[in-house]
Amino acid sequence: MSVKSKLYEGKAKILYSTSEESVLLADFKDDATAFNAQKRGSIKNKGSINCRISTKIFQYLANKGIKTHFIDSPAPNQMLVKAVKILPLEVVVRNIAAGSLCKQTGLTLGTVLSEPLVEFYYKNDDLGDPLLTRDRLRLLDLATPEQVETIAHLALQIDRLLIDFFRRCNITLVDFKLEFGLNSQAELILADEISPDTCRLWDNSIETDTENNLDSRVLDKDRFRRDLGKVEDAYEEVLKRVLSKLDGE
Amino acid sequence: MSVKSKLYEGKAKILYSTSEESVLLADFKDDATAFNAQKRGSIKNKGSINCRISTKIFQYLANKGIKTHFIDSPAPNQMLVKAVKILPLEVVVRNIAAGSLCKQTGLTLGTVLSEPLVEFYYKNDDLGDPLLTRDRLRLLDLATPEQVETIAHLALQIDRLLIDFFRRCNITLVDFKLEFGLNSQAELILADEISPDTCRLWDNSIETDTENNLDSRVLDKDRFRRDLGKVEDAYEEVLKRVLSKLDGE
Repeated sequence: MSVKSKLYEGKAKILYSTSEESVLLADFKDDATAFNAQKRGSIKNKGSINCRISTKIFQYLANKGIKTHFIDSPAPNQMLVKAVKILPLEVVVRNIAAGSLCKQTGLTLGTVLSEPLVEFYYKNDDLGDPLLTRDRLRLLDLATPEQVETIAHLALQIDRLLIDFFRRCNITLVDFKLEFGLNSQAELILADEISPDTCRLWDNSIETDTENNLDSRVLDKDRFRRDLGKVEDAYEEVLKRVLSKLDGE
Repeated sequence: MSVKSKLYEGKAKILYSTSEESVLLADFKDDATAFNAQKRGSIKNKGSINCRISTKIFQYLANKGIKTHFIDSPAPNQMLVKAVKILPLEVVVRNIAAGSLCKQTGLTLGTVLSEPLVEFYYKNDDLGDPLLTRDRLRLLDLATPEQVETIAHLALQIDRLLIDFFRRCNITLVDFKLEFGLNSQAELILADEISPDTCRLWDNSIETDTENNLDSRVLDKDRFRRDLGKVEDAYEEVLKRVLSKLDGE
């Protein structure tokens, strides 16, 4: 299989077509953006770290029966994926209050939610990826009501699997973002990536006496967003734990 | 009955307790604010105009079986209302796309919605009155799920009644905001006001050939928000039509 032409360049990945129509190559970049690309930077080795973490997680989820776009990883920062039509939705699953949920509701950072929250955002940079109610989802016709219910169900299933996965890495899964695509049979397929760019991950090996020390536990893109320092170290640490956990099974 | 002490001063009204515990006096102010009070001004006679329009509308709705907090209007800018515990929700009913719905979804101003949209916002100035999904409503425990369903049902019922009311004033009801309170029997009561401050109202007597001319039809606070001029005239016009319509029935 050979790489043909560049199809799309996103904030974190470049997608190329290949000689096989149903297969794309995703090239993971070191570029880092936050706040709808108002903040820009670079995280050393992020591309390969995120690609390797995502690879491990997609393989884990596939073993648990979740359909993903992952095919293979021919290089540390490259992934061969099934060509799917990405739905313009960011599906966020929250177990603990953080980020925009705190800003928009006044909930304290770190509040454990009584049940996981599945939220839909309109993947639209011009509009700033706004939160969508179910009614607005229907109004904008971004997915059928059946697709929305299937996605919500899948998202909760993936949440349970990932909570367990990260717990065995001594990491708490605070929240994460998923994207889904449709294959040629109109099946919903988990796409994009699952990495410290798209998850909030808190280290359980660091003791914190008060909520003020939560920052020291952060192992994800919040270190970049909020200038907490040691960004590369955090990404490396997640990779190390993810690799050692799975290899040990 | 005598007025006792000032209980609360909001952006558009002052509430006073009275010698009767179950009755409050609402004093409607001429002060105008927009964009979460970042824009401030004054609209001449707005207090009495909005109070008189609200009075007529509350009387109309009561005749149609809707429970409202309205008791009487002892002066043009004053309303005696039942003391209720206001739920911290802004309930917005939309028939035509305008305002934040357009900003957040990309829908074109003036798009007629296939069915009315009932939306809940968190009435919280510090947070900027954010949109709430049903899940966030439940998470924040701002109302019980039963109350939310009852409110949604009431809001649609009020929408049908107000569309009809304004149609007979030769006005299109684009959208409006409602607030509800609980009385001592925990019944949901329509509260606050219904006026050009809380509704988007478009004049049907002005011919517009394209959507670019929609602004000339605006008879509500958007004239103030968007500096369209003739703010007082618009409020006066709505009052005139509301009074003549009802008096003619």
